Amino acid sequence: MSIGPNPHAVVLLSGGMDSTVVLAEALAAGRTCHALSIRYGQRHRSELEAAARIAQALGAHDHRVLDVDLRLIGGSALTADIAVPEQPGAGIPVTYVPARNTIMLSLALGLAEVLDAREIWIGVNAVDYSGYPDCRPEFVAAFERLANLATKAGVSGQPLAIRAPLMAMTKAQIATRGIELGIDFALTVSCYQADADGRACGQCDACRLRAQGFEAAGVPDPTRYAT
Amino acid sequence: MSIGPNPHAVVLLSGGMDSTVVLAEALAAGRTCHALSIRYGQRHRSELEAAARIAQALGAHDHRVLDVDLRLIGGSALTADIAVPEQPGAGIPVTYVPARNTIMLSLALGLAEVLDAREIWIGVNAVDYSGYPDCRPEFVAAFERLANLATKAGVSGQPLAIRAPLMAMTKAQIATRGIELGIDFALTVSCYQADADGRACGQCDACRLRAQGFEAAGVPDPTRYAT
Repeated sequence: MSIGPNPHAVVLLSGGMDSTVVLAEALAAGRTCHALSIRYGQRHRSELEAAARIAQALGAHDHRVLDVDLRLIGGSALTADIAVPEQPGAGIPVTYVPARNTIMLSLALGLAEVLDAREIWIGVNAVDYSGYPDCRPEFVAAFERLANLATKAGVSGQPLAIRAPLMAMTKAQIATRGIELGIDFALTVSCYQADADGRACGQCDACRLRAQGFEAAGVPDPTRYAT
Repeated sequence: MSIGPNPHAVVLLSGGMDSTVVLAEALAAGRTCHALSIRYGQRHRSELEAAARIAQALGAHDHRVLDVDLRLIGGSALTADIAVPEQPGAGIPVTYVPARNTIMLSLALGLAEVLDAREIWIGVNAVDYSGYPDCRPEFVAAFERLANLATKAGVSGQPLAIRAPLMAMTKAQIATRGIELGIDFALTVSCYQADADGRACGQCDACRLRAQGFEAAGVPDPTRYAT
């Protein structure tokens, strides 16, 4: 997977399990990785502290935390005062943050343009989170097309690519791949309502999917639980 | 230009001349307008104060100011420590903010989804600002396509439209149209480096284009200049 003379990549890093595997994949592919975390008023701030530790432990070139206050927009259990559900429901979950991946990719695009990076890596996944419209392959393809119309990169004829290596993987496959890549998943925080110390609730959708992933992969679950 | 039973629209409002005309157009078309300004670390903060006055004066339903700190990204004379040029150059101007319109439309998309609005109005213009890749009709069309893949609106089969009524207009046509719509352009601030009181420098690209627009339209220039 060579991309020629420009190996710089922006990697969206939440501090969760999926984006950590994505960072490890980008590093394994020889990229110079500029990790970017977005602080969008989410409840699980300990994810951002995890992101900083992960960026350093894995060997990202640098790590930025960019603020955008989506609480003003509201509409999601992750940013507004709506209870995080403990049972999966039908359709789009209330933990869906409106336009979140569009916003995060847009900010990554701005950084990619400044750094002259030709890739943005993101941990979207269509398998376990199929209720989110902005986690589908056609969304990623449409953003890539937009990115090349929106920026100097596209105008200059050196296109920018969006890499979503987890798109078609199950949580178990992601766990297995992460362990192959040498990731210590105890560093990562996936829980939607982790405590200040980064310990997981064990009850929310994210916790359930993560635990099922480790179980299906047949590997020990290193998650630190609050209870 | 009827859009049926849902007349709610998000209108990106910078406080400058163009977005003010867009807000007036949306109101004239019968929309309930939710004005959205983005505070992205730009030099010309007085534009945001102008935006609040304009939203109220014209009759927007509400006005939000959303923070995103693009100074962390840098790369533009409007957010970083690069001098604003006083002569137009060739190619993409240094006042170009990386991915700015992509970021602003993404934030507007999040708000549109929460408000169940089916339109986003934006004052992009391909005529006077042809050096910016994200001011072209193909960019707006690509964002509209992305928006409908990214959100519940698209999934539900009630598509979202991006309205860019100034796209093909000259600055003179925009000035003329604004006056037809009853806008007091003294409320607006276009200058890239306006002072704290909102008075314009009279020297930057934005000031020059604006002044030329009023002159070409044959209407008095109401801009308050610092000198």
